[in-house]
Amino acid sequence: MTTPDQRAPLSREPLPVTGAWRAGDAVGQRRFVRVATTSRFQLEGGSALRDVDIAFETWGRLDDQRANAVLVCHALTGDSHASGRAGVGHPTAGWWDGLIGPGRALDTDRYFMVCANVLGGCQGTTGPAALEPQTGEPYGSRFPVVSIRDMVRAQAELADRLGIGAWLSVVGGSMGGMQVLEWAVMFPDRVRSIVPIATVAAATAQQIGYSMVQRSAIELDPKWRGGDYYGAEPGDGPARGLANARALAQITYRSDEVFGERFGRNVVDGLDQFRLWQRFDVEGYLDYHGAKLVRRFDANTYLVICKAMDLHDVGRGRGGVATALGRIRCPAHTMSITTDALYYPYQQELIRDELRSRGLPVEHTVIDSPHGHDAFLLETEQIGGPLTKFLAAVV
Amino acid sequence: MTTPDQRAPLSREPLPVTGAWRAGDAVGQRRFVRVATTSRFQLEGGSALRDVDIAFETWGRLDDQRANAVLVCHALTGDSHASGRAGVGHPTAGWWDGLIGPGRALDTDRYFMVCANVLGGCQGTTGPAALEPQTGEPYGSRFPVVSIRDMVRAQAELADRLGIGAWLSVVGGSMGGMQVLEWAVMFPDRVRSIVPIATVAAATAQQIGYSMVQRSAIELDPKWRGGDYYGAEPGDGPARGLANARALAQITYRSDEVFGERFGRNVVDGLDQFRLWQRFDVEGYLDYHGAKLVRRFDANTYLVICKAMDLHDVGRGRGGVATALGRIRCPAHTMSITTDALYYPYQQELIRDELRSRGLPVEHTVIDSPHGHDAFLLETEQIGGPLTKFLAAVV
Repeated sequence: MTTPDQRAPLSREPLPVTGAWRAGDAVGQRRFVRVATTSRFQLEGGSALRDVDIAFETWGRLDDQRANAVLVCHALTGDSHASGRAGVGHPTAGWWDGLIGPGRALDTDRYFMVCANVLGGCQGTTGPAALEPQTGEPYGSRFPVVSIRDMVRAQAELADRLGIGAWLSVVGGSMGGMQVLEWAVMFPDRVRSIVPIATVAAATAQQIGYSMVQRSAIELDPKWRGGDYYGAEPGDGPARGLANARALAQITYRSDEVFGERFGRNVVDGLDQFRLWQRFDVEGYLDYHGAKLVRRFDANTYLVICKAMDLHDVGRGRGGVATALGRIRCPAHTMSITTDALYYPYQQELIRDELRSRGLPVEHTVIDSPHGHDAFLLETEQIGGPLTKFLAAVV
Repeated sequence: MTTPDQRAPLSREPLPVTGAWRAGDAVGQRRFVRVATTSRFQLEGGSALRDVDIAFETWGRLDDQRANAVLVCHALTGDSHASGRAGVGHPTAGWWDGLIGPGRALDTDRYFMVCANVLGGCQGTTGPAALEPQTGEPYGSRFPVVSIRDMVRAQAELADRLGIGAWLSVVGGSMGGMQVLEWAVMFPDRVRSIVPIATVAAATAQQIGYSMVQRSAIELDPKWRGGDYYGAEPGDGPARGLANARALAQITYRSDEVFGERFGRNVVDGLDQFRLWQRFDVEGYLDYHGAKLVRRFDANTYLVICKAMDLHDVGRGRGGVATALGRIRCPAHTMSITTDALYYPYQQELIRDELRSRGLPVEHTVIDSPHGHDAFLLETEQIGGPLTKFLAAVV
């Protein structure tokens, strides 16, 4: 048994204390609006925020009728960079670059595409790593719990600023799909169609369980410091806790089948398997994804967003899921993934069936993929075809 | 966001530094043999142990032909207490109490049942919390990596001491099933039948991935201290790391369906859901199972046994899985669980098919259960019926 220090480090360079975008960092393709400058931004949980920044990107041109705007909502570790290359300000290529662009399924020659970093996020929108106006210091442990509904109300503020009365469509997978549903429930007049993909109407006990274990891993990292770690030296942040959380998430996002094919029982460190911290290839892969996330994400944001997902329940305070979904008045296109073991197909079928029972036109696409939940990021052709057709028919 | 100290503690009483059984603790139903007193117990990884204690329990009576002995092999967090009530020395009832006893499927009026704590374990058999003979101190970080084959060779030493030439059957689920397979491959002359349940011939990348995240959580706990924590004060051991590992394991052992029915979105702490550490019922359940394990288990043993499971590959050094299984010469009864999302049914079907292809008589039972992997502990009737019939026919 070797001590942690003898183990191969996650990276040769010290990992940043936070991977959050912070004032002074390269802006990249981001633009910003600031809301709640005169009034406070009221949160569902009872507290409020002041001077909320919303970072967003757009592609294409809003037409004269302001009728071609499509909102794309990102998932847990996504951000506003849904399309475009990696580059200054954007450590990775757009998370839906295969779907958004000229001539692609979300055709930027035709649609005005918008994607905003969520409230509580760490890529430009106000979150725990942002400076609290009252103190000029990062919020850290003082950042409040936010909900999916709070995220959506922030996006509605953005829509107001962009002059978009109603979205032609709101589209997103996973936590993005949670926002899609809330948009249609909260603002039925501002949404002409929705595309919720690999998502759920109310987070399940299993999803909450996985979230809790991930949140606990961050809490367990002494370098998390109760959430107030922003003043630490490089390499002295909660990197290991966040990487552990990400490693677990990554397993739940993929599938036994693909892990078996890709990694099997191959080993990283040569033939001597009889050391406690010797690593199989799959461990190297999970470590790699952990360290990669640490470089571009913030541990407190991970906590806040995981909690928002756990709290997600379109039925809360509305008489239950069915009654809440009954508020939706637009056509929908739900999508499921055959091998999704985190957001199982029955969860999207429930949404589909509930909306159909109200007489709404609902199409449903089954994405046949071995990749598990992450197929919503990977299977661009299977998503793109039905999406193009569906959007073209929106009145 | 609250700091960890503000969070509800895992328990009102300080958790023990280790839940390992240690010399001086109540012996309970345990008996002991000590092996490698004159020679060293050679391990597959190259190192060796001295003065290895094996803790075991037996039920029933060995017949005059020494032909009615059945070995039961325990899983990751099991121990020798497979049958019997909780009581002094045994914090929990036997993990297969529903199956082992007079008139039960593993009928102790008929069979001489044996169960031993595995090598590397923490309930009496030599493991990291045991005293190292050379120093008189707990092994801690000096305990070597052991393999499933090492566990089986320790059990063979026990069989020698008990005068058992060949087992009528070797039976076990999960990691117990790994030992079952190794028994039949390593000692084909000493095994007259085998019953591997919800197990695998070689740990998969997904299983290794879950194991790695759990091991990393223990490593992440500063109170783990690189493995040398046995001198700490009560409440100052790696309880949170071990509890985190257990919480994750518990999710993988159960199913979305049962979690949904049992917990849904109920909350522990009343109606104010908008606090970061407010807990849903499923979180309370996972915390409870974490704290419960901490009271009866040892964090270093968790690491060592998880690693042994990751290393499990009946094909290692034997020309691959198929060739290794080709050494088996006895009848087998494989069992799968419909909802097992950790040891999927295809993994037992592979074993079944490989053995059948060699002309061996192999029965297969599908345990139809919503409970996931843990059905091997819970569905005693579905396991017991086929098991009784199978054992009665062993020649």
